[in-house]
Amino acid sequence: MATATASSYLTIAAELAGRFREDAAERDKAGGTPVRQRGWIRESGLLKLLIPAEYGGLGGQWSDVLRVVREFARTDAALAHLYGYHFLCLIAPHLAGTEEQKRYFYEITAANNYFWGNSSNPLQKTIIGRRSEDGVIVNGSKAFSSGSPDSDLLAISWNDSESGEYYEGIIPSGRTGVEIVDDWDNMGQRQTGSGTVKFHDVRVEPHEILETPYAGQTVFSTLVPQLSQSILASIFIGSAAGALEEAKAYTLQHARPWYTSGLERASEEPSTLSRYGDMWADYQAALSLVEKSDRLLDAAWAKEEALGEEERGELAVLVAASNVQAGKMALDVTSRIFEVMGARATASKYGFDRFWRNVRTHSLHNPAEFKLRSVGNWYLTGSAPVPGFYS
Amino acid sequence: MATATASSYLTIAAELAGRFREDAAERDKAGGTPVRQRGWIRESGLLKLLIPAEYGGLGGQWSDVLRVVREFARTDAALAHLYGYHFLCLIAPHLAGTEEQKRYFYEITAANNYFWGNSSNPLQKTIIGRRSEDGVIVNGSKAFSSGSPDSDLLAISWNDSESGEYYEGIIPSGRTGVEIVDDWDNMGQRQTGSGTVKFHDVRVEPHEILETPYAGQTVFSTLVPQLSQSILASIFIGSAAGALEEAKAYTLQHARPWYTSGLERASEEPSTLSRYGDMWADYQAALSLVEKSDRLLDAAWAKEEALGEEERGELAVLVAASNVQAGKMALDVTSRIFEVMGARATASKYGFDRFWRNVRTHSLHNPAEFKLRSVGNWYLTGSAPVPGFYS
Amino acid sequence: MATATASSYLTIAAELAGRFREDAAERDKAGGTPVRQRGWIRESGLLKLLIPAEYGGLGGQWSDVLRVVREFARTDAALAHLYGYHFLCLIAPHLAGTEEQKRYFYEITAANNYFWGNSSNPLQKTIIGRRSEDGVIVNGSKAFSSGSPDSDLLAISWNDSESGEYYEGIIPSGRTGVEIVDDWDNMGQRQTGSGTVKFHDVRVEPHEILETPYAGQTVFSTLVPQLSQSILASIFIGSAAGALEEAKAYTLQHARPWYTSGLERASEEPSTLSRYGDMWADYQAALSLVEKSDRLLDAAWAKEEALGEEERGELAVLVAASNVQAGKMALDVTSRIFEVMGARATASKYGFDRFWRNVRTHSLHNPAEFKLRSVGNWYLTGSAPVPGFYS
Amino acid sequence: MATATASSYLTIAAELAGRFREDAAERDKAGGTPVRQRGWIRESGLLKLLIPAEYGGLGGQWSDVLRVVREFARTDAALAHLYGYHFLCLIAPHLAGTEEQKRYFYEITAANNYFWGNSSNPLQKTIIGRRSEDGVIVNGSKAFSSGSPDSDLLAISWNDSESGEYYEGIIPSGRTGVEIVDDWDNMGQRQTGSGTVKFHDVRVEPHEILETPYAGQTVFSTLVPQLSQSILASIFIGSAAGALEEAKAYTLQHARPWYTSGLERASEEPSTLSRYGDMWADYQAALSLVEKSDRLLDAAWAKEEALGEEERGELAVLVAASNVQAGKMALDVTSRIFEVMGARATASKYGFDRFWRNVRTHSLHNPAEFKLRSVGNWYLTGSAPVPGFYS
Repeated sequence: MATATASSYLTIAAELAGRFREDAAERDKAGGTPVRQRGWIRESGLLKLLIPAEYGGLGGQWSDVLRVVREFARTDAALAHLYGYHFLCLIAPHLAGTEEQKRYFYEITAANNYFWGNSSNPLQKTIIGRRSEDGVIVNGSKAFSSGSPDSDLLAISWNDSESGEYYEGIIPSGRTGVEIVDDWDNMGQRQTGSGTVKFHDVRVEPHEILETPYAGQTVFSTLVPQLSQSILASIFIGSAAGALEEAKAYTLQHARPWYTSGLERASEEPSTLSRYGDMWADYQAALSLVEKSDRLLDAAWAKEEALGEEERGELAVLVAASNVQAGKMALDVTSRIFEVMGARATASKYGFDRFWRNVRTHSLHNPAEFKLRSVGNWYLTGSAPVPGFYS
Repeated sequence: MATATASSYLTIAAELAGRFREDAAERDKAGGTPVRQRGWIRESGLLKLLIPAEYGGLGGQWSDVLRVVREFARTDAALAHLYGYHFLCLIAPHLAGTEEQKRYFYEITAANNYFWGNSSNPLQKTIIGRRSEDGVIVNGSKAFSSGSPDSDLLAISWNDSESGEYYEGIIPSGRTGVEIVDDWDNMGQRQTGSGTVKFHDVRVEPHEILETPYAGQTVFSTLVPQLSQSILASIFIGSAAGALEEAKAYTLQHARPWYTSGLERASEEPSTLSRYGDMWADYQAALSLVEKSDRLLDAAWAKEEALGEEERGELAVLVAASNVQAGKMALDVTSRIFEVMGARATASKYGFDRFWRNVRTHSLHNPAEFKLRSVGNWYLTGSAPVPGFYS
Repeated sequence: MATATASSYLTIAAELAGRFREDAAERDKAGGTPVRQRGWIRESGLLKLLIPAEYGGLGGQWSDVLRVVREFARTDAALAHLYGYHFLCLIAPHLAGTEEQKRYFYEITAANNYFWGNSSNPLQKTIIGRRSEDGVIVNGSKAFSSGSPDSDLLAISWNDSESGEYYEGIIPSGRTGVEIVDDWDNMGQRQTGSGTVKFHDVRVEPHEILETPYAGQTVFSTLVPQLSQSILASIFIGSAAGALEEAKAYTLQHARPWYTSGLERASEEPSTLSRYGDMWADYQAALSLVEKSDRLLDAAWAKEEALGEEERGELAVLVAASNVQAGKMALDVTSRIFEVMGARATASKYGFDRFWRNVRTHSLHNPAEFKLRSVGNWYLTGSAPVPGFYS
Repeated sequence: MATATASSYLTIAAELAGRFREDAAERDKAGGTPVRQRGWIRESGLLKLLIPAEYGGLGGQWSDVLRVVREFARTDAALAHLYGYHFLCLIAPHLAGTEEQKRYFYEITAANNYFWGNSSNPLQKTIIGRRSEDGVIVNGSKAFSSGSPDSDLLAISWNDSESGEYYEGIIPSGRTGVEIVDDWDNMGQRQTGSGTVKFHDVRVEPHEILETPYAGQTVFSTLVPQLSQSILASIFIGSAAGALEEAKAYTLQHARPWYTSGLERASEEPSTLSRYGDMWADYQAALSLVEKSDRLLDAAWAKEEALGEEERGELAVLVAASNVQAGKMALDVTSRIFEVMGARATASKYGFDRFWRNVRTHSLHNPAEFKLRSVGNWYLTGSAPVPGFYS
């Protein structure tokens, strides 16, 4: 496999997705950490897709990252998640760090193809950081630490033991005192390693501490929820695309026409054709909306500190809508594929239910109800969603 | 546990369902044969619920059996299936056998609490029976033999080696030459043992051969598809009920209100309340239709040989409609429960996805599309569904 | 047309429905008051269906009334509404009056085939009643006075000018000072005459004033919302049934197969068949639930003062669920019928859109969202809906 | 009102839409021909939006036309239809005429702001053309002649009296023998004038006869169904947008919170907010897909004779999908708006049901089922839709 360049990244991603597919069903059953596949991603150079060329990266945009996320999710939604969230962690210094931190973390990641893991969450106040002379000592335990197993760098967060204020930092995953438990065992997204990380007197160096606490002074620094929702939207899109592709292959190769239909092939059944047409049309509508919100995200990202509140508001609304639509469509499509395949497609060897299990699990990440309320409120009253942990 | 009587059967069934629940999630993961639970069902006396009192049974109606199916399916849709299909096999001599055979099989089942398994299917022509002097010798292999593992009696079928005609028979599951492979491994209904049975020169005695080939001379003998669809409809209903109950318990015990809602408890969230209300209303509508078709089934069953074509037609239409409605509702409810529980409810330990996996698997048994066409054709033109293997 | 008896009422109702159908589309366009049709209903004797035999009525149950409502709604949802609400007004003295008032109003209605109209509403505080020596003088204006035009008796309500307390009463519609404006002009339910009634110093005699203000001392007296919701549920059911019947007739007589289908008749198109099947199955599910809640309503009604809170709670939940399901189904079916008829079925002469317009209008009477919340709250916490104006 | 230019066309369109809105509800009730509004459109210059600058037009693209269609449909779907179909007729010489005819009709239209009407249809063989020495004499009657009343030029079609072959032509609407009956009276799209045109020995001059019969020799000449479907898709989108806007205005100005909600304003109700959010997200998804298919249409149109079969196939699939999605969304949104407005919004004076009636009527133009089959067939087997009258 060649190393990705600014022009070849999507071809490389497709090649990787093809490899992921080979044992995706087995790995889904097994759970755990897809170490080999993570290695391939490292080798591919795709981990530096978003990093500006001046720091040694491929200089891609968020829409490029999201296309890769969709490509991966066609065959493995867990790897798509790990890949997308790698960037969500990686850009933390860009959003909330100093210029020096931004440069430093971009450069070491590009140079070493570092894979980032996530062990930060502003809502879980389970980690306490105590200021020491030179840095901070953190203790505690963090659930939902996606991508922490086999990671090189770890985005972490804590509340200050005195002020209570929320901080983020980045440390090498192998730092003394970091215990990555790898206890994730859920019905979907099974290889995302979203388990517990424990911190036993873990030292965070001053240059590893992001200067600005979360509720940033700039609009730009509040974009994390839009990035996160966009990544999930693309995982939904890719999952639906992959489900449709597996269904298509199955229908063409294995499915049989119903015994009273008088047809030769399952693919001639009119109701099967219109079902495929319906699913594809649903998929295309959601995809088109996601592509539109991706374009708006690129524009917002390019503005950096110049990003205004109104633009952020419009982006937040469009991203929320595209996330909800993509999730709804994917939940539906990943269930309906069985109707165009038939009873025998439920055999465990195919593992076709993993598409639904992945989407169902991921779609609960933050409730559609609350996203839709904020969209509706904006539509009705013109008030943009209040920047927050999920909005 | 007391033994079931004509009046206590539902209490006993509920007690059994409670026991099934204890390790239902674990057993679902493990697959295989629920030998202990099958034993409890034997001991409960519920296997003779439908058998007329004169033959030693409890003299229940089909609607009673179906209530037990729903009760079981609340906690274990596989056991509900095994229980329902036990009767589908058991009544074969009643529908298509001699008076003597009907008596014989009812009596030995009632006396011994025999559990029937199924290895017959008119569409799979993979078993050949060769007439010998005294009986038939069958050879071949049968997939989808639900309930064959750990069964006492086995309903089988074959095509005659000379005439090609289709026959059914009943043999002890332990008969020499019967190899129950137990290779079922699917995404849902995992403990139904719906795997392969191989027949190596298996002898079928004359009294074990049902006199009338499938396409019976009486309308009564064509009721199998309605019975089968009714059983599945009740499995769907019970699965939805069980999913709702698990969700309710989880919402009350574990779920948390969304962090921006300002509420104390998840169960106070208005959108959660209306979602529960909506699911319950959907459930009630499907249940009411199933109860109505169950009553019509009781009436048809009671008519026996007096059952007319028109009555059968109306039953077929109502049962098809109730099966489709129950399946649609259950597919929907078993997916939506996650929205009222939240992300943490996807932990594998709960196994809440099994409800959807079971329904999704079972709803493919015979396609809703073809059932609905026959319903629509009847509504439009007055033509009843043509009695067949699935209609 | 014969006069209805306890056994023939449904036949008479069907005959009337047939007559309504003849110019239902034209009358819908015209709006106004269906005086001739109201006359036929009077003559039929069906206005006394619910009145106990001892008072000269037919001694029917609420489920009988609701079957007639469904029968009427097949061809004319406005007349179904007028008929159903006639009883909702008529039973006010039974629920909240003295024994004498109950007898009096039942008897004069049965003897004269009086048609009741409604001009009461606890939420509109626009009518003030001033106590005088012998009775009350009311002044004000009341919107949504369904069935007031061409009525014989009028159920009215007011708030006492001093205490503010809410009262109900019954007066002859022709009483001096009553001005029935007949200004109803809405997109649906156009002949229900749900317009304004103005009261100019209208005298209400003591025997016309219901003794107990609305928030009754007995559980029985709080059943109005359940009656009202049940009437609407049956209007929805009947509307859907009628829409399906019109569609069926059109498909068989006028619809053409799509030019690429290669079929002879529209009724052979597989997707048309499955659409009819799907609509019929949806219809049957909602109907079955409505029939179930109707049975529970009969039981509650029969209990009268013995009705307990828990029973009322269960009834309220089931009725709310059946109302919502019926409304949802009817809204869907009345829109989907066009897909099995085709473009030419949109001609104004058919007036097929009136089914949807009627259902859409009526389904807003009280919001499904709030009914579903109360159902969900009961399912989750066991708390019955608080008796109120709409629950 | 200023005259439209290549840059101001959308502003002008919005201004016109605002004027249409003033009496849109009244005109919908009245039916007939919106002569004044058609006059405004003529004056605006927008009728030459698509005409290349070299012929005196504004040189816009199809996507520009479709944006105007959406703009008009926000307030008046009939005028949007008339406007869109004006171009569908106008480009007939471009697709199937000589270079001279293309120039001629573009130029006279641009110079005179001619409004085209449609009286052609390949499936209705009710018009016969008899070749004469100089031209053709046509006789017969054509239904569904949208836009014929008050038109300047009329696209017509006939089958040759001898060969039976299908021809199209363009004549002045005032040509002797043309009788425009204006008998359109349907439940929706009431001012589209889609009634009958009768032809009494109508002469068609040679230069008015399009040289190539419909089944064109070039791929480009088969684009009519894609244009037609795209116009309808944009009418759906605009109708939904308009329905949402009217609902929003109503909710903010008139709607009341439910009496048990404890809220001050209807726009604070959480379920209302999430309903608006949901509708807007659905709308955005369909809009995004339509915008995508519009872009592809522009590209195909620009290729003219160079357009290949594969490109046409991809366009046909995407346009069919976007048409179906837009129709489905619009049907849903135009019905759901009532749930966020409440019962009083059904008053006839608002005419809010016209959005649903328009969409329901128009969505039957060619059945979604058959479009989806062709989409599904393409997805499954790679076969593009066969170019035809509707595909």
